[in-house]
Amino acid sequence: MEIREIKLEELDTKSFVEEKVSEISATVGDGSAINALSGGVDSSAVTMLAHKALGNRLKTFFVENGLMREGEPQRIVSLFRELGVSVEIIDAKKLFFDALKGVTEPEEKREAITRVFYKEVFGQLVKKSNARYLLQGTNYTDIEETVAGIKRQHNILEQLGIDTQEQYGYKVIEPLIQLRKSAVRRVAKALGLPEEIYNRPPFPGPALAARVIGEVTPERVEIVRRATKIVEEELSKTGAFQYLAILHNDKVTGIREGKRDYGLQIEVRCWESKDAKVGSPTRLPHDVLEKLAEKITKEVEGVVSVTYNITKKPPSTIEAI
Amino acid sequence: MEIREIKLEELDTKSFVEEKVSEISATVGDGSAINALSGGVDSSAVTMLAHKALGNRLKTFFVENGLMREGEPQRIVSLFRELGVSVEIIDAKKLFFDALKGVTEPEEKREAITRVFYKEVFGQLVKKSNARYLLQGTNYTDIEETVAGIKRQHNILEQLGIDTQEQYGYKVIEPLIQLRKSAVRRVAKALGLPEEIYNRPPFPGPALAARVIGEVTPERVEIVRRATKIVEEELSKTGAFQYLAILHNDKVTGIREGKRDYGLQIEVRCWESKDAKVGSPTRLPHDVLEKLAEKITKEVEGVVSVTYNITKKPPSTIEAI
Repeated sequence: MEIREIKLEELDTKSFVEEKVSEISATVGDGSAINALSGGVDSSAVTMLAHKALGNRLKTFFVENGLMREGEPQRIVSLFRELGVSVEIIDAKKLFFDALKGVTEPEEKREAITRVFYKEVFGQLVKKSNARYLLQGTNYTDIEETVAGIKRQHNILEQLGIDTQEQYGYKVIEPLIQLRKSAVRRVAKALGLPEEIYNRPPFPGPALAARVIGEVTPERVEIVRRATKIVEEELSKTGAFQYLAILHNDKVTGIREGKRDYGLQIEVRCWESKDAKVGSPTRLPHDVLEKLAEKITKEVEGVVSVTYNITKKPPSTIEAI
Repeated sequence: MEIREIKLEELDTKSFVEEKVSEISATVGDGSAINALSGGVDSSAVTMLAHKALGNRLKTFFVENGLMREGEPQRIVSLFRELGVSVEIIDAKKLFFDALKGVTEPEEKREAITRVFYKEVFGQLVKKSNARYLLQGTNYTDIEETVAGIKRQHNILEQLGIDTQEQYGYKVIEPLIQLRKSAVRRVAKALGLPEEIYNRPPFPGPALAARVIGEVTPERVEIVRRATKIVEEELSKTGAFQYLAILHNDKVTGIREGKRDYGLQIEVRCWESKDAKVGSPTRLPHDVLEKLAEKITKEVEGVVSVTYNITKKPPSTIEAI
């Protein structure tokens, strides 16, 4: 099926919302649906659309995969509670870390996360809830990149020939599939979501697993989680498109209290971009860069070196994995 | 033996040179000595001191270990020929690469290089030449760092309890051992060496092997050699203390002609420092950084990502290995 993009300039948010709400109502009928909320702009917009369409017949879950940022599950759940949407947290940390054990190749990591998410976690939830539909926030860029073979986005299924009905026992509904990120943001704003959500920098599905080069263990995720917190605190005011910390697998020589310390390296990336198709490193002042390095090497145990990405996309990608 | 530093402000280059020349003459007597010239300021100054002291009884070798920068052996040899010092190139590439096969731990790499250099290469040369002395440019910082346990400098032997007489068949003379880098530069200038040498940024002994994280193979050295050439061309005019390119072992996702390209990453470091004891990343303009990334990703095959070090020493070290 060919998917037609709705460009930002032709988007009428009010009629888009009305149209999608009635499409969801019509598809789900008097059945029920579930969806996963990550707190990103895509899944947040989908949650609001489906909530408008289905009310209590929508069950929204926050999957705690152990790969989220500090305090994220609680923050997102309470934010949606204020909007009248109740969200249930599913603790699936063990399932994800078990699946990631010993996996170092990026595409295999993505595959493991996709499998656990759709099959183990959502397969079970669907069975328990009797829902026949899963709503998710796949957008136009996800499809383009996956089809082009750049990287397998975690939420792409049908376009890769995965029959969710047969394999997982439910059908997938993707109301945002014709929109790029900037259009999704506008829809999210129209849906009454707060700026914290509609302007939120992208944080892709595999979450901190995409920020760990090499094996993803709870300990290594905790290291990149701490670095991520510092990077987000220091760079949120820049207005950059996306900013991230990456834990490398390579170790480098450092020095602590006059002694050799063979330690870890964190790479910081901060991007100027409209839609993630192309991007340039933000020209951060050197004061900001040095402060970042100082805080990370001081506050994140084991880190002796911090670098800053200076390569554009292409030939880089936004994330390292 | 306690070594006393001669500080820059108390250094009288003329009397230092005279003193060292007569010390070398007295020690070697009517015997002969050999030395290895790498083209760095330390070994260049030693070559000139020993040449003044011993004339033709000094045999100077340039050890081609396969880890040197592009065109380096030829350039250094012809430069010293103009100064009246003849230098013989020893092709030891195979010995070094054989010793480095499968070695990934930094200290083991250094140890392998040290062993090949002093035992296999110089042990043989000493036997053939009947020389009983090896002159080398160990300086005060090398000793300090090795004794402090920060990193094993390739040229530190006696201080680590290595008896060269017993193990390799020769004694080591180290005329620069009381000087830090800036003092060595002043002595090198006083010895009539050209600015290209006396102001040359440091390029430590393990050479490009210290710029390759993971296994050091001829192919991987060639990649970092090309990146090093670009970094040196672009940054030589900055007047920075030292600048380098490091090939990482980690691979990162990139994109080429719309397709996923899982490729290599180069880290660039550029340092402001007086004596390598402490240092700060040079605050290079972002234009310069982006140009570096563009040239490296365009001209060095397989590289999709370039980063810039933003961490001070400490807790970083100048080199990564």
